[in-house]
Amino acid sequence: MLDNKFIAVIGGSQPSPEEAQLAEAIGRELAKQGAILICGGLGGTMEAACKGASSEGGVTVGILPGNNRQEANPYVQIPIVTSMGYARNIAVVKSAQAVIAIGGNYGTLSEISHALQSGIPVIGLKTWALSKNDRQDNSIIVVNSPAEAASKALDLAINH
Amino acid sequence: MLDNKFIAVIGGSQPSPEEAQLAEAIGRELAKQGAILICGGLGGTMEAACKGASSEGGVTVGILPGNNRQEANPYVQIPIVTSMGYARNIAVVKSAQAVIAIGGNYGTLSEISHALQSGIPVIGLKTWALSKNDRQDNSIIVVNSPAEAASKALDLAINH
Amino acid sequence: MLDNKFIAVIGGSQPSPEEAQLAEAIGRELAKQGAILICGGLGGTMEAACKGASSEGGVTVGILPGNNRQEANPYVQIPIVTSMGYARNIAVVKSAQAVIAIGGNYGTLSEISHALQSGIPVIGLKTWALSKNDRQDNSIIVVNSPAEAASKALDLAINH
Amino acid sequence: MLDNKFIAVIGGSQPSPEEAQLAEAIGRELAKQGAILICGGLGGTMEAACKGASSEGGVTVGILPGNNRQEANPYVQIPIVTSMGYARNIAVVKSAQAVIAIGGNYGTLSEISHALQSGIPVIGLKTWALSKNDRQDNSIIVVNSPAEAASKALDLAINH
Repeated sequence: MLDNKFIAVIGGSQPSPEEAQLAEAIGRELAKQGAILICGGLGGTMEAACKGASSEGGVTVGILPGNNRQEANPYVQIPIVTSMGYARNIAVVKSAQAVIAIGGNYGTLSEISHALQSGIPVIGLKTWALSKNDRQDNSIIVVNSPAEAASKALDLAINH
Repeated sequence: MLDNKFIAVIGGSQPSPEEAQLAEAIGRELAKQGAILICGGLGGTMEAACKGASSEGGVTVGILPGNNRQEANPYVQIPIVTSMGYARNIAVVKSAQAVIAIGGNYGTLSEISHALQSGIPVIGLKTWALSKNDRQDNSIIVVNSPAEAASKALDLAINH
Repeated sequence: MLDNKFIAVIGGSQPSPEEAQLAEAIGRELAKQGAILICGGLGGTMEAACKGASSEGGVTVGILPGNNRQEANPYVQIPIVTSMGYARNIAVVKSAQAVIAIGGNYGTLSEISHALQSGIPVIGLKTWALSKNDRQDNSIIVVNSPAEAASKALDLAINH
Repeated sequence: MLDNKFIAVIGGSQPSPEEAQLAEAIGRELAKQGAILICGGLGGTMEAACKGASSEGGVTVGILPGNNRQEANPYVQIPIVTSMGYARNIAVVKSAQAVIAIGGNYGTLSEISHALQSGIPVIGLKTWALSKNDRQDNSIIVVNSPAEAASKALDLAINH
C-alpha cells in the first residue's frame, strides 16, 4: 500500500446533509483513484467519507480519540485507538499527505491549523477562512466539487 | 494558589517587537492581579509574557513540547516536560481558565481552536480572525490593550 | 478487515539475532492466520515482525513516534504518524486485541504495563518478568515458540 | 523556583493505609527540603503525597489525565489539565528530576518504565521488582523509609 497516497478527510460529527453528501462523494472519488482514507474514525463527516470509500473498495483508517475500537464507525477498516482525546487530531493530519476539510467546527479548525503548521496541503470545501491583522490567509486551497477536492489532494500530496 | 486564576498567554516564537512588548505588558498585568501564567514555555511571545510576570513576582508555568526542562525560557518557574510535541498545545489551553492570544501563526491558531472547542474564553490582540461560509465567527474577543486583555481574561475565566 | 484480528508485536529496536528471528516467525504466523499486525513502525523487532508478516501477504500497521512517514521501516504498509514520542506506545497496545512481547527494554516494559492496565492480554517470549512485594505477578503469559505466541494471541484477543 | 528540585511521587489511586502513610511522610519530607512535588494529581497515593507536602508549605503540581481542573485532589496547587489519559503518565515522570514509586499497579509500572527509559532515577518503596530472562534488573533503587526515599531522590536528581 506504500504506493498508494494517504489522504485525510476532516469535518464535523454533525455535518449538514449537503456536507455529508460531499464527504461521501469525496470518499468514493479517493478510493477510485487508489488513495487510502485517513479520518478521525467517528460519525458524521468521517463516517460519510468512509462509507463512500468503502463503496468503491477503498481502504479506510480511523484514528480514534477514545479507549475502544468499537467507537469506530462501521466503515472503518483499520481502527487506531489512541486514548488521547483531541490530541489524536494531530495524528489524523500528520498521517496524511494532504487533507480535505469539509465544513466543520473548532475541532476541524484545529486539524487545519496543525496541517498548515506542518506544511501538509489543506483543500477546503465550505469550510473555515482565515485572516490575521486584516490580511487574508490563503493557505487553504478552496475547491468547489468532490472531484476537484480529490484530484487536488492527490496532486498536492507531499512525501514527508 | 488555588484561589489564583490560571491564564494562558499564547503567541508565536518569533513575535514582532510590538507583539513582544504587548506580551510582556500582559504578563506584568496578570501578575499584578494575582494570576498564574500558563504558556508553552519556549521563546518569543512565551518568554516575553513570562518575563513580564516574573518582574511583578508572578508564578509562571511552561508546558514544554520536548524532552528536557532546559528548553524552558529563563523566566519559567514550573517547567512541565510533556515530550509530546504539538500535542502539548492542548494542555496549554486546557490548563487555563481563559486564554490571551497575541499575534501568532498556525500553532497559535491550533491553540485558539482547541480552547474554543472546550468553551475556554479566548481574548485576542492582533491575532487570527475566523469566518466560515462567508459568515464571520466572533468567538475570539478582540481587545486593544494589555490592560484590557488581562482584565477581560480575569473577568471571563471559567471554572472547569 | 474488521473480521481480522489486530495483534501487536512489541520489542526493542536492537534485538538479539534470536529475538529478531522470533519476531519474523511470529509475523509470518500471524499473517498466515489472517491477523493484522500492529507495531511501533521502526526498526529491530518491529521491522522483523513486519517483514515476516509481509512475506505471507499480511497487512502491517506502524504507529510512529516522530513527524515523518519515512521513519517507518520498509515493511510497514499503513504508517500512522503521531508526532507524540513515547506516548505512541499507548496507541500501539490500545489498537491491539492482544500483544506479543519479545525481549525488549524499558520502552517495551511501558507497553506491557499500558496493555495490562487496559486488560489487553500480553503474551511474552524471553521478555520481562514482574513481581511486587516479593510476590510474582503472572499476568504476562509466557510461551516458548512463535507458533504458540501467535495462537495464544489469537485465542485470547479481546473485543474492546 | 528553578533552584528547587522537582521530584515526582507515583503510586496507585487505592493505596493500602501503610502506602498512604508512606506517601504523606515522603511529601512532608520533600517539602521540608525545598522540593517541588510532581504527581498525577488524583486521589490515593497522589493525594497523600500532596497532603504531606502542603502541610509543610510545599508547592504541589498535579498533571491530570482528564479534561477538568476540578478532578485534582484538594492539595494540588498547580493543576495541569492534559486531556490525554494515560499519556499524562509520561509528562509526570519527564517533568521530574527523580521519581519515588510507592506500591502501585500497572499505571505506576508504566511510569517507572518511562522514567528508566529516559534515565530519570527511580527510588522504590514496596513497589515493583523487575527481571528479564531470569536476570534481575536493579535499576529501581530500593529504600526502606520516607526519609531515605526523599534524600535519595534529592541526591540523585538529574538536570535534564
